[in-house]
Amino acid sequence: KNPTSKLRSFCPFTILYFCVLIESSLLQGWVRSVRPQKNNIFLHVNDGSSLQSLQIVADAKLNDPLLTFGSAVEVSGILKKSLHQKQPVELEAEQIRVVGECNPVNFPFKIKERHSLEYIRQLPHLRCRTNAFSSLLRIRSEATAAIHSYFKNNGFVQIHTPIITSNDCEGAGELFQLEPSGPAFVDDDNFFSVPAFLTVSGQLHLEVMSGAFSRVYTFGPTFRAENSQSRRHLAEFFMVEAEISFTESLEDLTKVMEDVFRSATERVLARCAEDVDLFHRHVTPGHRWGCDLMTEHEKYLVKHCGSVPVFVTDYPYDLKPFYARDNQDHPKHTAAAVDLLVPGVGELCGGSLREERLNLLMARLKRVGLEDTYNWYLDLRRFGSVPHGGFGLGFERYLQCVLGVDNIKDVIPFPRFSHSCLL
Amino acid sequence: KNPTSKLRSFCPFTILYFCVLIESSLLQGWVRSVRPQKNNIFLHVNDGSSLQSLQIVADAKLNDPLLTFGSAVEVSGILKKSLHQKQPVELEAEQIRVVGECNPVNFPFKIKERHSLEYIRQLPHLRCRTNAFSSLLRIRSEATAAIHSYFKNNGFVQIHTPIITSNDCEGAGELFQLEPSGPAFVDDDNFFSVPAFLTVSGQLHLEVMSGAFSRVYTFGPTFRAENSQSRRHLAEFFMVEAEISFTESLEDLTKVMEDVFRSATERVLARCAEDVDLFHRHVTPGHRWGCDLMTEHEKYLVKHCGSVPVFVTDYPYDLKPFYARDNQDHPKHTAAAVDLLVPGVGELCGGSLREERLNLLMARLKRVGLEDTYNWYLDLRRFGSVPHGGFGLGFERYLQCVLGVDNIKDVIPFPRFSHSCLL
Repeated sequence: KNPTSKLRSFCPFTILYFCVLIESSLLQGWVRSVRPQKNNIFLHVNDGSSLQSLQIVADAKLNDPLLTFGSAVEVSGILKKSLHQKQPVELEAEQIRVVGECNPVNFPFKIKERHSLEYIRQLPHLRCRTNAFSSLLRIRSEATAAIHSYFKNNGFVQIHTPIITSNDCEGAGELFQLEPSGPAFVDDDNFFSVPAFLTVSGQLHLEVMSGAFSRVYTFGPTFRAENSQSRRHLAEFFMVEAEISFTESLEDLTKVMEDVFRSATERVLARCAEDVDLFHRHVTPGHRWGCDLMTEHEKYLVKHCGSVPVFVTDYPYDLKPFYARDNQDHPKHTAAAVDLLVPGVGELCGGSLREERLNLLMARLKRVGLEDTYNWYLDLRRFGSVPHGGFGLGFERYLQCVLGVDNIKDVIPFPRFSHSCLL
Repeated sequence: KNPTSKLRSFCPFTILYFCVLIESSLLQGWVRSVRPQKNNIFLHVNDGSSLQSLQIVADAKLNDPLLTFGSAVEVSGILKKSLHQKQPVELEAEQIRVVGECNPVNFPFKIKERHSLEYIRQLPHLRCRTNAFSSLLRIRSEATAAIHSYFKNNGFVQIHTPIITSNDCEGAGELFQLEPSGPAFVDDDNFFSVPAFLTVSGQLHLEVMSGAFSRVYTFGPTFRAENSQSRRHLAEFFMVEAEISFTESLEDLTKVMEDVFRSATERVLARCAEDVDLFHRHVTPGHRWGCDLMTEHEKYLVKHCGSVPVFVTDYPYDLKPFYARDNQDHPKHTAAAVDLLVPGVGELCGGSLREERLNLLMARLKRVGLEDTYNWYLDLRRFGSVPHGGFGLGFERYLQCVLGVDNIKDVIPFPRFSHSCLL
């Protein structure tokens, strides 16, 4: 009954295999080009499984004015070895059905035009239909899976840290506050009985788990109400955060940071080679390492080290949040914190050993008047405290770094920033 | 330099292997029991990698008043075959170091007491230190990985749908609205220039992607400002949502729902057997299929079918949201929607074919006055529309169903609900 059940999605390799087993193939996808000739018509149809489209050859009598760039089609026919070198196989069409029309006059993308990232960014509901953005989404999906695999293979337990929180974590940055909306709450806008915010980091919640697990991580959205429309800021962005118990050295952390980066990148380059290549060749061909908007110091450091990723460790104690571990190296007085700076992007990761010593932590919280607020956090040090540390990695910045994408808005499906929340 | 680098985490199986290679082992974890005898002292130490603790045998002179239930320790020694049947191996301690004390008088969990789920729920920063909740977190992590694997292995692209949205999706349920907080926004609380809410579903954003990919999914938090403290409701909960292009029958959807459920459950039962067993034997031993708080109709249906999961399809058209596909079966008039009801939990999944026909969708949106609001959604039907459908699965309800847990607050790390947002 359902014609799609036979061969659901197309990819060049699976079709090669199927064509040995079955005579007739069904391809479902979107038309990327139409080339009518005297006796034949040539189509390229893409189903989103890869950058590659499949070439369709049909008798001219199967042509249809509705067969336009962007239209959705179902094509049944015989898959054959192609006579042209450009593709290994092509589909000789027996039937072509246009299931969704696409008026080329109104469709905001034009055939054979390469639209700029700025232009397609204005069309969040349609930009996945461009080669560049569908490649980005496949890469993002693969990188996400690779990061989960890394942590799973290395004994980390994944924790779903909450989005809504009554902490403001570091007291740093601007927060989004929540209010219930709707008629049920006209007289009662204190839904949670306490002020509630969108999380800026899952770190403190991961530290809770560091009292029972040796290695935990989280990978999810975090938020900053930063009033900036720069190419480096989003109001909603994804962070990978990890926390490791029974560790007493920053090298344990930098090793994990480096391993995550390496293993994710190796897998992305291996499994999304064509998609990554599209970015490197066409989308961001003018990308140079070390471009302009990062802070001068970060720029200097990365350049000084030969435009390679650089770890910077042991920051001045007073610059770091209350949870950073005191190195007790007076008179210098530093905290055991580390940042990973990468060319073109700046800070990719930030981490620290956490102050596990109750007396030192309590004294510091007292000095800043947060002793009561973080009494629950002090409990973690009262009951079976362990030396531990962790870090966060900005997932969009990671993608920018690997793909050489200048604007962070071009590596996330639905960017949210100051004065923009489309869809 | 760092003693932990040799053997980082303990699990009964890896230690068995290591003990052939190295003479001395290092175990780091938390004390679950202390049993001093005349010549020896016996400890059980758990590192969170499994429900099992490792038995430590030490000379009585290694005893220390700080070796208490809940304290964190590092034990080095020789791993040996145990003489007792209860465990295959035990660690003969050479050195025991208490790295984090735990005063048993103040520690809210008591040795050998089985605390109720209600009690440990009051202690969100410490409850992972109980057997029950650390088992739950391992199961939740494994189930999450299993769900991602299922979709990846079946050709789905993962999309990070946004948390912040200017849609209110179905217009159903109460929403959380966002305002920036902090001094920078005293005079300007319109951060996004439009009202912005926490998402209730990623469906519409997935439908955007259904115009370029054959199969997409998302797995993340969703929100409802429901003023309820019942055992069935959370303000923040996790949903698995999938959208499939080029599908024209509900059976295509029910097949995926069933496959996700089966493959995740098989893997959880295989890889977390001990943890699941703990729930079935001790934590929820009184759990019966078909308990009381679900709606009467759902109860009846599930019971009528022999207390097995039940798909209910083709609901009255007027009860379903605007995007549900019209079955055009006048005079009955139903929509192609489907719910999966499971014993004890009620609705686990809800899905539908989506109205892909521009004229029908436009007419319906006009009738409810949403034509302008959803003009972007109509664009998806104007340009290369395809027959498609999708569903959402409540991840906490899934865990409740598999583990027989009565209260949804007991299957999420940090539950948020009316008048409660701890940490």
